[in-house]
Amino acid sequence: MKKRKTNIFLGWLLTVTLCISNSALHSQEHPKLILTKAGVEKIRAELGKVPLFDESLEELKNEVDAEIALGIDTPIPKDYSGGYTHTRHKKNWFVLQKAGVLYQILDDEKYAIYVRDMLLQYAELYPTLPAHPKTRSYARGKLFWQCLNDSNWLVYASQAYDCIYDFLSKRERKNLEKNLFRPFADWISVENPQFYNRVHNHSTWGNAAVGMIGLLMGDDELVDRALYGLKNAPVNTGEKDNDGGFIYSDDGRAGFLANLDEPFSPDGYYTEGPYYQRYAMYPFLIFAEGLENVKPELKILEYKDGVLLRAVNALLNLSDADGEFFPLNDGQKGMSIYTSSLVSAVDIAYRYGGKNPQLLSIAQEQGQVLLDDSGLDVAVGIRDGLAKPFEKKSINLSDGPKGEQGGVGILRYGNEDLTLVFKYAAQGLSHGHYDKLSYSFFEKGDEVLQDYGLSRFVNIEQKGGGNYLKENKTWAKQTISHNTLVQNETSHFKGKYEIGSKHHSQLYFFDASQSTVQVVSAKESNAYPGTEMHRTMALIKGDSFEKPFLLDILKVTSDSKNQYDLPFYFMGQVIQTNFEYNAPETIEPLGKKYGYQHLWTEGQGKASEDNSKFSWMNERRFYTLTTTTTAADEMRFVRIGANDPEFNLRRDAGLMLRRKDTQHTTFVSVLESHGSYSPVSEFAVNSKSNIASVKKVRDDEKYTAIVIEDIKGEKYVFILSNKDESNSSKHNLNINGNDYSWSGPYFFK
Amino acid sequence: MKKRKTNIFLGWLLTVTLCISNSALHSQEHPKLILTKAGVEKIRAELGKVPLFDESLEELKNEVDAEIALGIDTPIPKDYSGGYTHTRHKKNWFVLQKAGVLYQILDDEKYAIYVRDMLLQYAELYPTLPAHPKTRSYARGKLFWQCLNDSNWLVYASQAYDCIYDFLSKRERKNLEKNLFRPFADWISVENPQFYNRVHNHSTWGNAAVGMIGLLMGDDELVDRALYGLKNAPVNTGEKDNDGGFIYSDDGRAGFLANLDEPFSPDGYYTEGPYYQRYAMYPFLIFAEGLENVKPELKILEYKDGVLLRAVNALLNLSDADGEFFPLNDGQKGMSIYTSSLVSAVDIAYRYGGKNPQLLSIAQEQGQVLLDDSGLDVAVGIRDGLAKPFEKKSINLSDGPKGEQGGVGILRYGNEDLTLVFKYAAQGLSHGHYDKLSYSFFEKGDEVLQDYGLSRFVNIEQKGGGNYLKENKTWAKQTISHNTLVQNETSHFKGKYEIGSKHHSQLYFFDASQSTVQVVSAKESNAYPGTEMHRTMALIKGDSFEKPFLLDILKVTSDSKNQYDLPFYFMGQVIQTNFEYNAPETIEPLGKKYGYQHLWTEGQGKASEDNSKFSWMNERRFYTLTTTTTAADEMRFVRIGANDPEFNLRRDAGLMLRRKDTQHTTFVSVLESHGSYSPVSEFAVNSKSNIASVKKVRDDEKYTAIVIEDIKGEKYVFILSNKDESNSSKHNLNINGNDYSWSGPYFFK
Repeated sequence: MKKRKTNIFLGWLLTVTLCISNSALHSQEHPKLILTKAGVEKIRAELGKVPLFDESLEELKNEVDAEIALGIDTPIPKDYSGGYTHTRHKKNWFVLQKAGVLYQILDDEKYAIYVRDMLLQYAELYPTLPAHPKTRSYARGKLFWQCLNDSNWLVYASQAYDCIYDFLSKRERKNLEKNLFRPFADWISVENPQFYNRVHNHSTWGNAAVGMIGLLMGDDELVDRALYGLKNAPVNTGEKDNDGGFIYSDDGRAGFLANLDEPFSPDGYYTEGPYYQRYAMYPFLIFAEGLENVKPELKILEYKDGVLLRAVNALLNLSDADGEFFPLNDGQKGMSIYTSSLVSAVDIAYRYGGKNPQLLSIAQEQGQVLLDDSGLDVAVGIRDGLAKPFEKKSINLSDGPKGEQGGVGILRYGNEDLTLVFKYAAQGLSHGHYDKLSYSFFEKGDEVLQDYGLSRFVNIEQKGGGNYLKENKTWAKQTISHNTLVQNETSHFKGKYEIGSKHHSQLYFFDASQSTVQVVSAKESNAYPGTEMHRTMALIKGDSFEKPFLLDILKVTSDSKNQYDLPFYFMGQVIQTNFEYNAPETIEPLGKKYGYQHLWTEGQGKASEDNSKFSWMNERRFYTLTTTTTAADEMRFVRIGANDPEFNLRRDAGLMLRRKDTQHTTFVSVLESHGSYSPVSEFAVNSKSNIASVKKVRDDEKYTAIVIEDIKGEKYVFILSNKDESNSSKHNLNINGNDYSWSGPYFFK
Repeated sequence: MKKRKTNIFLGWLLTVTLCISNSALHSQEHPKLILTKAGVEKIRAELGKVPLFDESLEELKNEVDAEIALGIDTPIPKDYSGGYTHTRHKKNWFVLQKAGVLYQILDDEKYAIYVRDMLLQYAELYPTLPAHPKTRSYARGKLFWQCLNDSNWLVYASQAYDCIYDFLSKRERKNLEKNLFRPFADWISVENPQFYNRVHNHSTWGNAAVGMIGLLMGDDELVDRALYGLKNAPVNTGEKDNDGGFIYSDDGRAGFLANLDEPFSPDGYYTEGPYYQRYAMYPFLIFAEGLENVKPELKILEYKDGVLLRAVNALLNLSDADGEFFPLNDGQKGMSIYTSSLVSAVDIAYRYGGKNPQLLSIAQEQGQVLLDDSGLDVAVGIRDGLAKPFEKKSINLSDGPKGEQGGVGILRYGNEDLTLVFKYAAQGLSHGHYDKLSYSFFEKGDEVLQDYGLSRFVNIEQKGGGNYLKENKTWAKQTISHNTLVQNETSHFKGKYEIGSKHHSQLYFFDASQSTVQVVSAKESNAYPGTEMHRTMALIKGDSFEKPFLLDILKVTSDSKNQYDLPFYFMGQVIQTNFEYNAPETIEPLGKKYGYQHLWTEGQGKASEDNSKFSWMNERRFYTLTTTTTAADEMRFVRIGANDPEFNLRRDAGLMLRRKDTQHTTFVSVLESHGSYSPVSEFAVNSKSNIASVKKVRDDEKYTAIVIEDIKGEKYVFILSNKDESNSSKHNLNINGNDYSWSGPYFFK
């Protein structure tokens, strides 16, 4: 597999190598990177005629004018994220870029003067700076505590420099390049190879920063360093970064292209998950746009079958009905398609990706456009009434450079009325969590069963400097914090990055061809050596049901007897159970490690014979979980928050099914969303489960067959072929006197 | 006081007595109660010309047509709230009334036939019914488990009967009146005096029901029974209802007029609180409208200086920025001005209350109008562009029949940006809570410090039959569940209704004349005999503050040493404290009774010397509490949920300040709302407190003086005159060498 990847890369390299050499004679015009001389002329001609563009411009102008009025401040760096010096330098990079754009579009020198003065101030400051005084990072920056933020700064500042390039004297340019930009680019690359020469979102920023200033200064050495990484940098030292990820990958490849090859699957899924994909989209796309403008012969947007544009589509599909990204791996809840890096992603994807009119409706909701050629195209498209609704459908996104390392399956019903997010992906680098075959479930934009997301208050300095909190490792990354199986109170891969990084789950099949029965199924055999988990999730709309229900079949086969815990992190308030439980007088943590130390037991009892039922209410809707159990199973109500003295964790609830001393077993659960409650009319509608029973009528190596009976006596049969997923295979089966014949991996009626 | 009340009542009685006798010759026209013959003609003439009216009509028609298609069902009663028979009969009463209205407006016989057939079916069923089989109520109905719901039914069914009165044959009318309406009216009154003859929202429904059917049947005995209650009913037996309230009041007055006199203050505040006021508004106003139409000479809307119309204004002002009622006493959160009883209240208040154009904007937001003369007036007003925004300002609403039993003070800043709700009211009958001088605080429609509200899942059968849960008594009613002082772990009045009902707090002063400094102050001396509490709350906009802060001065004077607990039920996540605390390994309930048994201790520590500070984040905003403490004080993080095996309580958090072994003391706290956080931009703005210190610089019998210093060194001085609240009194004071001179109860600069 590694060999084939290298070949493809070499192929593209051959195609473009000559072009790169030729392009050394690049244009001397400025701006040329993101804005272009021709583009600016076109923009000026359209001013006042394209509402969304004009509004975005007006907003930007107000913001920059307010900053200019405040005056320039480039303080001596000293703080972590959220502190003053951090926030000020961060603000500066945005304002620099924006003021540069305003100078070009409005042709008003005050903006050029502001950019010039600030850059000159930085050129004076920078040579005096040692590494940042805060030492927590594996790669300290100079303006910021980590090289990552310094790279952010340079990605934006280069655009500002481009905009005022012609406004500056030759001497000023020389000063800036010598005292600021070149040493800046060197610091984040040659001085910090452990940061720069990785396959990681951090490095993508570093690569883009070095590449953009390189394109601008006409320095092909820097552009090469950006595209291909540092030569002769250390390889595979086993060192780790702050998040516990390996710094160097096995094959030592680095640079922008390696960062396109490795973490992106052919479907455009970014292995770290959507929260980090969103973060990386800006440097990926803005540097790509710069390359497209300065070195069009590179055809960067066609690289790897157009993966950058596919990535925008994947990312938009990795959001809920409110546009918020699914918090897979380390994801902060609330981050959404309305963030600024998605504005650039959508605009650039529109311009360069065939002008998909569905992107225009996203841009409309974003309410702003880039102030460049792409943004103008989008604003014109909207003005001309071309926008169409963006339709999110069920989608399977493969993970891994070749799409062969598992993935994420998303099943949607209706207009995102119900959404299943099923994760059977690879580790996701250092931001990955240990949760194979886990899922979360949404109704519209509300979480029904949640993925906890990260434990961090990003940029809120009072909470651990705004950085990852220790509970991110002790809770959020652990398996038990997810809706998936935990064996013997131990996380998948024992929570070890070294092991987890080597493995991924395997897709069994994905079928969303019929809207009334959609199925995703995957297997995992490395999380617990000797144990295979096979989880199949189906979103099924039965005739007598108001909404689809979710059928969850988790078949566990092991070479030994184990304890299995299957938690359900429901959101909302308990309404009813059909099993008895006791609430303890004093409450204690459930365990000592692997996240169990963070769970209180609020209730504990025996499961019901056959089916245990649990109903809750959230956001004015009712939900019921019906799961097959025996009286030997244990049910526990848990609450997050034990051993969390600083209240870093949310006090959310869960219900845990515990099955002890068992070798092979199959968990079968049905989750219904039903009815509604209004505190205004005080009517409770359809507040009870419509399911009378869920039964395993056959469960062996070859087949698992489930019968779901509703309260009117109607029966639904779902049969899964456990070993043969071929679409063409024919199956004939007799269960309790009924004959079933079908082709393909499953039967449903 | 009682004497004066009786005199006023007798005065009104003299004025109208003759009229009542005369009106026995009432109109024989139908409809006449809510719809009138003239009104219907006018409505028919306007059809298709008044958008909101037409929309409301269309919606109603769709709903009723769907019900007609379903067919009529009048099942044998058997369920509690939320069960099928309850829900069906409840639905029937609404559909009856609506179908009646449609018959009148659309002149389509199918609606008359539907009403007739259903009523006849009820006339067949009713005589066969014993008291409802469920026995939980102190006053069982026949269709429903409590007379209250039977009364609801009759209030609506009489309107339906009125609408089809002329459509029915004489024989049909006789059948209905003999077998259904008269025995129905008797059951809820003479057969259940303990329900009917009270001052309580239950009785208001009963009175209105009997009165409406009486007006309709031209039965003055029933109308008298409605207005004045039952004669010769038992008085003051000490019996209690299901909510623990006394069934009979001291003076034995009853009936609709007594229910206007007693629970309403002259400001229109209803002593049970807004949730129950909302519930009672429909029978109050609909019966009043009926009286206005059939017996205009009664001038019911002028009764007690127009208290019914004042009540509508009070109720609208008892809601947050989202229109949700403050959950004082037993209030279900989420109930709002968009509920149907407020549609009638707003429409009737508009028609009969001088056509206040601000009411039109509420009606617009409600999106529907009554399908009668009032609703038509409102819809026409909106069509004609007369609507003006409803402006909620700071307001002091007195409690008690004469407005002399404390009250509720509401301080608002800006466009409901910040709202303080300060409760210093009377007990509030059986739905009252034991929380003198408590408060809650809102930012826009979000709770910052919450009032817990009730513990009940109204009409959700699975949760205790949809009725009050036992935690309502053991938690929600107890003092510790509110943001006010608890002495020696005992609720105010020891949580005894008999004692609490005899007392109320006293307003000290209320001043909202300046928007930058608004103050409400009240005293309580009966909650704990021997202890006086004097609480003063000021909403202050300092120049260097982004938003106003809330200053809270709680002065406690006692004849003995006590333990004082002051909780703050903050909503959201802990950000920072300046005091040290430990998180226990296992957690235990805080106490055994008075609500303490429901609190877990999640953290415990010593307060800081001088000022203890606590910051949290909620709904993307930051809050900081700064409170004066000494190192002898204890700080506790508590969480609701201990001894709550059925998860009837929300797992919300609180911070509790405990001061032990203290006689006199003054708690001084400042609550700031500051800054914001966006998970989309990941910027944390103004996330830290702007207050450097809060100091008591004088605190004795006469004066309490507070100096608040902000982080820029600016000082704000607030001095309270503790014993003289006169506006004209002059004060001269020297504190630490500074002279202060002012007039009135407080000084601020």
